[in-house]
Amino acid sequence: MKHYHVIGEDAPNIDGFAKVTGQAIYTFDMTLPGMLHGKILRSPHSHARIISIDTSKAESLPGVKAVITAMETGERRQGAWRRYPELCDEPVLCLEKVRYIGDPVAAVAAIDEDIALEALDLIEVEYEPLPAVFDPMEAIKEGAPQLHDDVENNINLTRHIEWGDVDKGFEEADFIREDEFILPAQSHVPLETHGSLASFDGGNNRLTLWTSTQTPYYVQCLLATAMNLRENGVKVIKPHCGSGFGGKNELFADQFCAGYLARKTGRPVKIVYSREEEFTCARRRTPIHYYLKIGAKRDGTFVAKEARAFSDGGAYTSMGATLLYLTGWFSAFPYRYPNYRYDGYKVFTNKSPSSSMRGYGGIQANFCGESQIEMLAADMGIDPVEIRKKNAMYPNYEVPGQATIASCGLPEGLEKIGEYIKERGNLPKDHGIGLACYGFNSGGIFNWFNTPYAFSGAEVRINIDGMVDVYSLAADVGQGADTTMCMIAAEELGVHLSDIRMHSGDTSICPSDLGAWASRETLMMGNAVKMAAADAKRQLFEIAASKMGANIVYDLEAGDRRIYLRDRPERGLSYYDVVRDAIRAKEGSLIVGRGHYTPHGKGMISPAFSFGVQAVEVEVDRETGYVKILNVFTAHDSGQVINPVAIRGQVEGSIMMSAGYGYSEEMLYDGGKVLNPNLVDYSLIGYRDMPSAVTVDCPTYEPEGPFGAKEVGEGITCPTAGALANAIYHAVGVRITDPPLTPEKILMALKEKSA
Amino acid sequence: MKHYHVIGEDAPNIDGFAKVTGQAIYTFDMTLPGMLHGKILRSPHSHARIISIDTSKAESLPGVKAVITAMETGERRQGAWRRYPELCDEPVLCLEKVRYIGDPVAAVAAIDEDIALEALDLIEVEYEPLPAVFDPMEAIKEGAPQLHDDVENNINLTRHIEWGDVDKGFEEADFIREDEFILPAQSHVPLETHGSLASFDGGNNRLTLWTSTQTPYYVQCLLATAMNLRENGVKVIKPHCGSGFGGKNELFADQFCAGYLARKTGRPVKIVYSREEEFTCARRRTPIHYYLKIGAKRDGTFVAKEARAFSDGGAYTSMGATLLYLTGWFSAFPYRYPNYRYDGYKVFTNKSPSSSMRGYGGIQANFCGESQIEMLAADMGIDPVEIRKKNAMYPNYEVPGQATIASCGLPEGLEKIGEYIKERGNLPKDHGIGLACYGFNSGGIFNWFNTPYAFSGAEVRINIDGMVDVYSLAADVGQGADTTMCMIAAEELGVHLSDIRMHSGDTSICPSDLGAWASRETLMMGNAVKMAAADAKRQLFEIAASKMGANIVYDLEAGDRRIYLRDRPERGLSYYDVVRDAIRAKEGSLIVGRGHYTPHGKGMISPAFSFGVQAVEVEVDRETGYVKILNVFTAHDSGQVINPVAIRGQVEGSIMMSAGYGYSEEMLYDGGKVLNPNLVDYSLIGYRDMPSAVTVDCPTYEPEGPFGAKEVGEGITCPTAGALANAIYHAVGVRITDPPLTPEKILMALKEKSA
Repeated sequence: MKHYHVIGEDAPNIDGFAKVTGQAIYTFDMTLPGMLHGKILRSPHSHARIISIDTSKAESLPGVKAVITAMETGERRQGAWRRYPELCDEPVLCLEKVRYIGDPVAAVAAIDEDIALEALDLIEVEYEPLPAVFDPMEAIKEGAPQLHDDVENNINLTRHIEWGDVDKGFEEADFIREDEFILPAQSHVPLETHGSLASFDGGNNRLTLWTSTQTPYYVQCLLATAMNLRENGVKVIKPHCGSGFGGKNELFADQFCAGYLARKTGRPVKIVYSREEEFTCARRRTPIHYYLKIGAKRDGTFVAKEARAFSDGGAYTSMGATLLYLTGWFSAFPYRYPNYRYDGYKVFTNKSPSSSMRGYGGIQANFCGESQIEMLAADMGIDPVEIRKKNAMYPNYEVPGQATIASCGLPEGLEKIGEYIKERGNLPKDHGIGLACYGFNSGGIFNWFNTPYAFSGAEVRINIDGMVDVYSLAADVGQGADTTMCMIAAEELGVHLSDIRMHSGDTSICPSDLGAWASRETLMMGNAVKMAAADAKRQLFEIAASKMGANIVYDLEAGDRRIYLRDRPERGLSYYDVVRDAIRAKEGSLIVGRGHYTPHGKGMISPAFSFGVQAVEVEVDRETGYVKILNVFTAHDSGQVINPVAIRGQVEGSIMMSAGYGYSEEMLYDGGKVLNPNLVDYSLIGYRDMPSAVTVDCPTYEPEGPFGAKEVGEGITCPTAGALANAIYHAVGVRITDPPLTPEKILMALKEKSA
Repeated sequence: MKHYHVIGEDAPNIDGFAKVTGQAIYTFDMTLPGMLHGKILRSPHSHARIISIDTSKAESLPGVKAVITAMETGERRQGAWRRYPELCDEPVLCLEKVRYIGDPVAAVAAIDEDIALEALDLIEVEYEPLPAVFDPMEAIKEGAPQLHDDVENNINLTRHIEWGDVDKGFEEADFIREDEFILPAQSHVPLETHGSLASFDGGNNRLTLWTSTQTPYYVQCLLATAMNLRENGVKVIKPHCGSGFGGKNELFADQFCAGYLARKTGRPVKIVYSREEEFTCARRRTPIHYYLKIGAKRDGTFVAKEARAFSDGGAYTSMGATLLYLTGWFSAFPYRYPNYRYDGYKVFTNKSPSSSMRGYGGIQANFCGESQIEMLAADMGIDPVEIRKKNAMYPNYEVPGQATIASCGLPEGLEKIGEYIKERGNLPKDHGIGLACYGFNSGGIFNWFNTPYAFSGAEVRINIDGMVDVYSLAADVGQGADTTMCMIAAEELGVHLSDIRMHSGDTSICPSDLGAWASRETLMMGNAVKMAAADAKRQLFEIAASKMGANIVYDLEAGDRRIYLRDRPERGLSYYDVVRDAIRAKEGSLIVGRGHYTPHGKGMISPAFSFGVQAVEVEVDRETGYVKILNVFTAHDSGQVINPVAIRGQVEGSIMMSAGYGYSEEMLYDGGKVLNPNLVDYSLIGYRDMPSAVTVDCPTYEPEGPFGAKEVGEGITCPTAGALANAIYHAVGVRITDPPLTPEKILMALKEKSA
């Protein structure tokens, strides 16, 4: 195996010091001279017609500088689906109807927040309430209230995936199970809520927007369209970002309201969501009614699977459209099903749009699929590890007609899990270990945003002092993308991490990137950065080769700030000296390298897939129903590990989020109203609830990834909830199919069982 | 003459709207979360030894976060002369001695300005006052107080320029004049005083400095050295800048004190000079004792000139070193002297360092030279226009051994001035018209900063929407450099000005540039930007040529957002379409062009020279001595005009500054103490004093300049003071050789004359 200088070694995030010392500036922290504060008036109704809006009282309140409604923003609808404009169905501000509690109706800019809030109260909106529907299974019924005039039965979208002959497969099966699951909403709960600061240059008709986003490029394009500006009439800057988890990769009301208000007032306008807005008006994880049928041969071999999903999509298409496809794809993952059929229905309901969220379709499919496999194994009397080993994907497996799996560490992971379970031996009473296998995409291939640019583009510039500037629009939202890119650039150029200076998050200076979603940055932007660094390195090698008399540049290697002969490493030159000579040779120009990456010839899903398997051990208190997660053991394959400490962080954060999904987090609704929109009543897992977490790497080399790397941030979110359900089953014998598995549900199930 | 689409047409500055609406953010306006305010303790003595500094009381004042002295900044001395380290003689903070009233001794960072100021009072510095010297002619005498131990007779530097045989020249002369002049200091008076905001990233050991500067790159390098950081461990950002006039192209105390204090406190620190600090502690125009001798043949032909200058350099070398050379060069400008000799002496005095200032050496030489030529013409009975015509430089004239003048509009300018004077006819009583010819460098050639980079570098990126991003470190300090660069890029690419987006003033994202001094940006950065745009255009032409079946790319031309056949302009393609196709052809990468410029083969002075001649008409009130400037007529050659309205602005601003130098601005000293450090007592010319100003172009094509352009911002500053003195002479017959020509001096001279 190749020896690396930088990658594979723990590196603290390059912005870690700034964050822990409080120096890091988030959008929330920013102020500009003359800045106004904006607030958004939102619908109090789940479904209503707007009869009239009177803003005159609000406008005459001293300190109010502007009020906007759909009179300004017009009939235009927005959405991220540039390839399918009909899916862009969200009004910028509501014109005729509101469709969920929180739908934006108007916005105000005032000299302080209190006045802005007071002005909201002075906006008089006359509504005609309409009947509303909140459950997708109700919404598809004839006669249900219809959210969009042109969408019958509220069926927003359908998706179908099929391969093999599913009916024939089931005929051949010795065992068949059919199960239903009801999967809940989950809130992203970013520590930093959505927020934007907009400044409009009326002289040049250009907007600058600082915003907390995962997708600066999307926001740029979508906001430009919404405001009728040129694409590069909008410059989006992502300051430090307090996470997104999938909830910040579309255009949001803070962004367009700040933009419109800044243009109208000629002054900078900041809008930051309150925590309540974040819970009620932002996005959420898609609830799904899931039907699953699985068939297996007596020896445990899966022969067929069928899945049907009705997703509670909320009021608009949003990124829930992709969810509908992905959850179908992940329902057949990471196992080998020769025959598979999926039908998905995305249904409009009068709730906030459900959209992308870390684990995106995977966590839902995983909870159901891993629960069902565990039940099937119990039915058949097969060991849970063995049934998974029998069916797990392996390297170079082809999913019929969909994708080819290249690297795959799942078989090794199952070996390790097996050993771990053996080591744990007999467990105490009311303890149980549950398993779940998982895997995830390393970015998506389908160009639904219709970008004319490479999916990821990067530039590298080498300065006279050897400092390397890397330009990348990869969005670091706390996951450490900037650090990963620095490590890749440093490794490729043979310099130290401290030699890299990252420029990211500014659409006006960074080459294109689609942003932080679908775990795409490490592989896609990693490839672009590596290519840019290699381009610059080649230019250094030209100089070094001529000075050293190497045959050709390919005889050279770079590492640890030296350029040396690959086969005689003791013969080399200082990186600094070569840089100086190269800049001289280029008449005093910087050494510039460029790179870009768009997946080609890798099917329609993703260029590469992560894998892993997780074992969760719990203790259940039969009196209270309280579950304590004791240990989580994860065998994980994300290809060549770039930054081990970052992977550990991802594993721990994922356990927290996925366990929350499994047994504590719950968006409580009364009709369309969220009852617990705050951090007291919405139960995140705190650090005191965190189990001990051990992760072992199952390293593979992913041929499509930079240095063999692939995704880590999302796949690992998928297993914990399902494994937890399986662990509870093994601990106390109850099976719950509608997470979260709260103490109430467990007590109820224990009671039913003993009855 | 070629038809241009963009250049040559009036374009409002791209930042004009932001400035007039108050949206433009200057360093002064900026705040960052947790920001501290810094203040600098300065020497109250002109010359003293520091016995001790006790900061303990200041440090214990609540709200004070840090105090720094030379204990932190060490013995290191700073200065811009990287090629001659011995000239970098300015302590960062004074360690052993102070050498002028205002020398920085300590600095404080506190939670607000009042506390910071209070803390300054609590710093106890024990001084041992030393004898001081304020006049260069005194300072060079034996036994004068010595400012620097290793500099005998306080002679900081000498400069010698010579060509021909001066003594022989004078032997051949029919008329000889010898005159002495005493030229005063002048304050730059930028509307925005010096100011900086520093933020230090302790995790990566990197500093970001927002600062009001003309030379971001110099500040980056010098501050990195001063703070012992890597060159790119410092990122300098120049926000909108409220002018510099030469007073902001070195490293200043606000910059390094903010930097040190930010590092020490871990919090952002802002330091802004008060107006008093700006007048007393910043730089000033160099006062000079000038001796001039000129010899002419009976027909008016100049045969020899000799100049000797003793400059009052203040306490440190500063950029006054270049002044010493330049004023010698300009003493022989813009006339043909076959024999010339110059000796310059830069003398240390106990005053603030005198340094670069708009017109840099030229205005001093011009006042003396043009006064003397006028006197000579009077002695000889030759018309002032005629004697100038006789001796003026012309195109392709070679200054022996120094430089070749390429384009030169001076002969045409003198024709136009002659016509103007004729038109004015007989003037009323006590009116007079005075003349002065002038010319100036378009940037300097000598690499005194020892940059390894091209003098100017630029990058151009074309986006999918046709928007062009231009990256240039050319420092727009109000002169409109950004707009000029946009115009050049737009012209070369054949797009509109609104298609260009400028990125400037950030050392971490812009290729190299030496900054805004010596009128270098239009020619030098203009060439770099033009080359970068041409590089990008060639890539568009490749696509267009293949689509249109043009023979080769050279058959094509771009203009008005079209690319068309040069010889059949009606056959063409839309710029947007070609951009789209080119980006597709490049696999979705931006179209990137790069350019750079460093003068080669253009001698040691400058790659090109502007020229002009100015006539100033005054009316003198014999009772009060008050001078009213009535009309200023300028015939100006700055090559191809890029932005006519910008030239008019430069002419008007120059008249204001140069007339101020000539008759109103005066730094009044009591020893080393400035007595009038405020805008009430220091008499700038207000808009009510401004004369009517008419400018006629004498367009030339400068082969070394972009589209034939050369400098405009400084040459035009040179003539007004001298022409004013000549006009007063013609009005009332008095000759004053020590500007400013205040009413007191004029009354005194009138009295002497009538005596």
